[in-house]
Formats: sequence, structure tokens, C-alpha cells
Amino acid sequence: MSPARLATFTVGGKARYGAITGNGVVDLSARYSQWPTLREVIEAGALRRLAEEADAFAEDFPLDAIGYDIPIPSPEKIICVGVNYPDRNEEYKDGQAAPSNPSLFVRFPRSFVGHGAPLVRPPDSPQLDYEGEVVIVIGKAGRRITEADALGQIAALSLCNEGTIRDWVRHAKFNVTQGKNFDRSGSIGPWLVPFTDEAQIADIALTTRVNGELRQQDRTSRMIFSFRKIIAYISTFTTLVPGDIIVTGTPTGAGARFEPPIWLKPGDVIEVEAEGIGVLKNGVVDEAAP
Amino acid sequence: MSPARLATFTVGGKARYGAITGNGVVDLSARYSQWPTLREVIEAGALRRLAEEADAFAEDFPLDAIGYDIPIPSPEKIICVGVNYPDRNEEYKDGQAAPSNPSLFVRFPRSFVGHGAPLVRPPDSPQLDYEGEVVIVIGKAGRRITEADALGQIAALSLCNEGTIRDWVRHAKFNVTQGKNFDRSGSIGPWLVPFTDEAQIADIALTTRVNGELRQQDRTSRMIFSFRKIIAYISTFTTLVPGDIIVTGTPTGAGARFEPPIWLKPGDVIEVEAEGIGVLKNGVVDEAAP
Repeated sequence: MSPARLATFTVGGKARYGAITGNGVVDLSARYSQWPTLREVIEAGALRRLAEEADAFAEDFPLDAIGYDIPIPSPEKIICVGVNYPDRNEEYKDGQAAPSNPSLFVRFPRSFVGHGAPLVRPPDSPQLDYEGEVVIVIGKAGRRITEADALGQIAALSLCNEGTIRDWVRHAKFNVTQGKNFDRSGSIGPWLVPFTDEAQIADIALTTRVNGELRQQDRTSRMIFSFRKIIAYISTFTTLVPGDIIVTGTPTGAGARFEPPIWLKPGDVIEVEAEGIGVLKNGVVDEAAP
Repeated sequence: MSPARLATFTVGGKARYGAITGNGVVDLSARYSQWPTLREVIEAGALRRLAEEADAFAEDFPLDAIGYDIPIPSPEKIICVGVNYPDRNEEYKDGQAAPSNPSLFVRFPRSFVGHGAPLVRPPDSPQLDYEGEVVIVIGKAGRRITEADALGQIAALSLCNEGTIRDWVRHAKFNVTQGKNFDRSGSIGPWLVPFTDEAQIADIALTTRVNGELRQQDRTSRMIFSFRKIIAYISTFTTLVPGDIIVTGTPTGAGARFEPPIWLKPGDVIEVEAEGIGVLKNGVVDEAAP
């Protein structure tokens, strides 16, 4: 049996959420109108129940009728982990030892598109690059969560292509904010898979392909900072709340690491895949002239 | 005549917004229920009109009956400029020339309290530090805004004590996220002053006092990156929307720059003041034991 899959999508110009089945899409937002988005479903602790109850309903739409949006349209926070797989630290060639704490930055929801929508290459730089990552979605509010308790805070899993304008991450003296926040430069999705237990994430393969060619491949068991550590560390300083998105870092092999670098260009197709979660697929287009 | 002042506040456990007059507080949220917060007032382009119409109403509460909250409770974004006054670049002692683009980072709303509420010093570090800054609040959505048009995007002005856990800004290899996002470690307020014209911000004094002692003092005319440049630069990569908050940088003189450093401690009182905007005043307490 494939895992339950809950998506946010648009049909007929209206944003909805529902379950993706083998045959189509069950519109749950029409049946559970007390929860306007999946964020409120998660706040209510109802994500797994809705996934189960969806089995009782007939599909409302065929798969090709929907456009995927990012699964949580307005999370309170999207926090990304910077350098979290082996060889990534060495890529920086700064002679520094592996860091003892995760580097963190923030992305705004509008820097992401959903599954199937094209990433947008801005006219400001040709250096659009991919980064395939596993996403965890927080289910319960908490501060100073221990590593022992951390996995109990997770509501769901998803995927991210943490698309980056590479030269703009070093456009200023500090911080990568601008290179990580061009509108529609990355993607999250296709859907949320409800989190069940540690085996679901402890040692899964994460791969990124560009035009079918394997570019990134690693396993979550090799992460420098584990899912437990990331949740515990972030909650040291900020209260995590339901719907918060944590993007957990990318393996080596982004386009910037080739000699010469290989940037994404219009027409490319990028697929980020993780076992048990799915495949997040996006094309690339140039930003439309104003 | 003092400028109009619109605040978000709590009375009787209920969040409201209104006008601060010389005699008390006019509850505008009760009279304009179509707009739940000042963010929606700004989206409607109604901030200045509400400030003017408030003159016709009697005060609903005395000033000492309200607790100030941050003026926009849930902005889409809070973007902070890192190094933006003379001598601040030199403080980093890294031998680098002044940067050609502003360094940017992101804070979450929950890292701020309102005027009058105490900043919270966490048990993780004694290095709580102040940074007094001028805040601009965006009034109109826009992308790739030119410097010529930039000031027309501003709806209002405010102040920020961009409180920082100093050692946690370098806790990891890159990015200051964690040291800038401890819950309730900074403040925004006391209120919004509707933006009228460039003279209101072009050359105003910005000062920070701790326990009455002057610690930071500079003028906005000396900013490395002007208000126009900041808005134009940020909107290169992200669409600015009504209610977005931009925190525009702090003068030299934070506690970290003394030898030895002088950190904030419980009982201290910090006042951030800018001409024509007001005085943002906060105490300090230790985080309560769980």
C-alpha cells in the first residue's frame, strides 16, 4: 500500500486541499470546511485521520485537472538547514572543521512553487541551482524540545527543491537571504505524507536528477545533524508551531560544484525523490518581462 | 501637532488596534471591524484616513489600561538590514571594504514584544544586546521597485530594538538566524506613524539609551544604504506586500562593542528614540523556568 498523500492544489481558480489516490483527487477542503488549509488540519491533529477518511470518498477530480501548490500555503516559518551532508562542508574549501551547530536561514513561502509548476530564473543572474532536500512539517507547538522527544513533534514529511540563485547568496557581507528568496525559485511538495515512525525517515535515499541524469544521491542516515538534533536545536531559540516547515539540507552535487558549474536553464526538468515520500518534479522558465 | 500614532494593543485579553491620543486610546478595531488588524488596514490603504477619523471619537481607554503588542501581529515578512551605519563595518575588523549590497536576515514575529513589555534573556547565554533601529512598513505590493519610486511604497514608520543574543549569531558556520530569533528577545513599536514624505525620515536622529545613558546616536542621513536603496534592492528578489516590515540597521555602540562588553541584564531599561516617531521603551527579565 502506498503512503497516504495530502496535497494543496488549485482547481478552477480556487485553492483546495485533499487526498491524492491512485485514481485522482478527493477534495477534503469541501468536506472539512472548519479547516481552511492543511495548516489548520495539522493544528487540529487531524492529518492522519483525514488521510484515512479520504478512502471512503470517491475522487472529485482527475489528477491532470489540478495544479499543485506548496502544501502549507502560509506557514509561520520556513527554516532551512545549510550544510548537512558529508562532503558539503568540504565544498566550501575554507579549511574549517565541520561545524558543531547547524547553519540556519529563512525562506518566504513566495520563494516556492508547487509540484509541476516551473521554477523561475530571474534576469538578475544565470546561476539558478537545485538542491534536493527532505522536509519535515511540525505538528505540535513546543520550545526546548529534547532530542528524545523531537520526532513526536513531526506531523508530516515532504520534499523541497531548495532552488538558489548561487551568486546572490554571497551578494552581501553576511547571510544568504537574498540568494535563497527569489520569488518562485524553489519548490515544495508534491504533498504531505503523514509521519508515522522513525523508520520512515531514519535511513532513506534522497536523490536529485536533472533531465534524467543523477546529480545528488545520499541517505538521511548520513546527515551531519539528525532530524532529532535539528528540531531540538531550533526549538532552543524559537517556539515551533504546527505547520512550521523545516528543510533539512542537501547532499553534495549541486550544479555549482561542477567545473565549470552547470546552471539550470529553461527547459530543464529537475526531480527530487526520497523513498516513501515521492518525486517532486519541476521545469524551469525565464521570468516573464514586466 | 504631534504625528498620528496607531497602535496594536491588548485590553481585557483581547487584541485590538487604535489611535494613541494625548489623553488615551481610541479603539478603532471596534469601529472598523472589516479590518481585523493594522495589516488589513494598510492593505486597504486606509491607515492615514483612520488616523484622521480617530480625532472625531472619544477615547475608550486610558493609556495605562493597555498593553502594547507589535504593531503588525503577523506580517508576511520581517527583513532586517545588517550593517548600515558608519563605523559598523569597521567593527567587524575583518579588513573588508564596505559592502556594495546590504546584508539581510529574517526575524520571526515571535522574536519581538511590544512597547513596555520586557525583553526576555534566555538561560542559554548572558549576551543579550540592544540595537536601536528605524522601521519602515510597506503599504503597497511591488517587485523590482525603482529607487525613484521606493518611498511611495512606505505606509508607516516605527522603531525596533533589534535585541540579539550576540554569541548565537555566530553559533554556526553561516547566517545569524538563531542569535536574532530568540523568542521575545527584541521589540517593535510603540506604534505606527503614517508616512507622509521624505523629510520625515531623510535626516532624523536615532538614539538608544540604557538606564538613561546614551549608547547609540546617529542620523538616518548617514545610512550606508538609504531607505530608497533598501526597498529597491529587497524588491529585486522578493515581492514586497502591505504590512511587510523592514528593520533598517543600527548605529555603532551596541553593548558588544565595549571593552569588556556590557550585556543587558534584568532590571535594565532600554529606550530607542527617533525624531518624529517616538520612544520605544522595554525592560529586561530572565526567562521563566519551565
